[in-house]
Amino acid sequence: MRRLPVAVNSGAMPLLLISSSSVHGYGYLDHSEPEIRRILEGVRRVAFVPFALKDRDAYTEKVRERLTRMDVAEVVQVDGPAEIDSADAVFVGGGNTFRLLKELYERKLMTPIRERVRGGLPYIGSSAGTNLAGPTIKTTNDMPIVQPPSFEAFGFVPFQINPHYLDPEPGSTHQGETREERIREFLEENDTPVVALREGTMLRVEEQATTLIGIRNARLFRSGAYPLEIEPGSRIEEFLQAPG
Amino acid sequence: MRRLPVAVNSGAMPLLLISSSSVHGYGYLDHSEPEIRRILEGVRRVAFVPFALKDRDAYTEKVRERLTRMDVAEVVQVDGPAEIDSADAVFVGGGNTFRLLKELYERKLMTPIRERVRGGLPYIGSSAGTNLAGPTIKTTNDMPIVQPPSFEAFGFVPFQINPHYLDPEPGSTHQGETREERIREFLEENDTPVVALREGTMLRVEEQATTLIGIRNARLFRSGAYPLEIEPGSRIEEFLQAPG
Repeated sequence: MRRLPVAVNSGAMPLLLISSSSVHGYGYLDHSEPEIRRILEGVRRVAFVPFALKDRDAYTEKVRERLTRMDVAEVVQVDGPAEIDSADAVFVGGGNTFRLLKELYERKLMTPIRERVRGGLPYIGSSAGTNLAGPTIKTTNDMPIVQPPSFEAFGFVPFQINPHYLDPEPGSTHQGETREERIREFLEENDTPVVALREGTMLRVEEQATTLIGIRNARLFRSGAYPLEIEPGSRIEEFLQAPG
Repeated sequence: MRRLPVAVNSGAMPLLLISSSSVHGYGYLDHSEPEIRRILEGVRRVAFVPFALKDRDAYTEKVRERLTRMDVAEVVQVDGPAEIDSADAVFVGGGNTFRLLKELYERKLMTPIRERVRGGLPYIGSSAGTNLAGPTIKTTNDMPIVQPPSFEAFGFVPFQINPHYLDPEPGSTHQGETREERIREFLEENDTPVVALREGTMLRVEEQATTLIGIRNARLFRSGAYPLEIEPGSRIEEFLQAPG
């Protein structure tokens, strides 16, 4: 019954997909600084996509300050395709995934970003920006505060991502679904595997290989199979087709 | 700046909007039994809408067993408009709100249910079914596992509902948004007030009056105003236009 999706990775596409921009006890983007420096090596101008938060200028300023401390020369706030065309890398910041995706569709930015990244433009996503790297936003944790024209996202990787993954709380008396239950509901309706990224972890995609980076395991959910725990340093592709 | 939505309640429409079908320590629908008995007084046939869960037959069976113990003669699983036409009341069960709404649109059930309830058919919603009583599903907690054609819901009440409301956890180190932060994001993009229903509470709507029932307060969020705590027994309408 399980149909595995066709891999859509191109060879060149470098991606860094961060679960959360902050981790308890560390400053903004601190825990991912070595990976950000790695993917941005030789990059002069970063195009920043701020649409997941309401106050875009303040958000861009925060990212500009932080990336400048990582020796990035220029951070440009994305308004339309021109900023994508002239960038050496793109960074899609976190916030609300529905707000982010709606704005990208309305500004006709989905195709330019997708094409440039497929052509080799380095892509950094954090949280909502990481959600967009999968085929759809159907495994976001966010509230659907606005309605985008479609749930379809960039599809840079052939699996869904669930950022900020939270393990079930032992002894909780709350009757709402756990995160695991929500992802199982997704798999009742969809065949795409889901890589759940705990805070403090990220995925590095280089040369068709997706590597888990960080301080904790990822958890892989597939239709009709038990979830798998994936350790840091592992290649995600080796687990996508593992026996259930 | 704040525009209050036009009230859409008709006079006759009796609604019972339950935050969660279960409460810790009680069986299925136990805590709401007195209110369910009240709204179903004199009702012979209940049309049950099971689409929020995957296994519809098992879900209907569970509800049938429970409502029979409340002296309901007949529980019919809704398939299309015919079951709505012939019912004395409708019960929309909880589960995933996106799956529920998509199915209702696809089966062309939105208009028949809306019209019959506006005409006086008693409506019981639980969790996802409660979300649908507001103007949109934009304050659901659920994962968007499928894409409905629209986020527009029944609009029986002029405010959004957030069921299973959870207070922020003191001392949490998780960086994901709290429920309150998610609702504030909704209010950054929308003017409609949000009534957050903690588990163990429900709203009874009768004769244009919405009363909070249950063991805990509700929390009202409005654009540009501090949240208000509303005590059981209060009329929600008195708070919707209160000074911020």
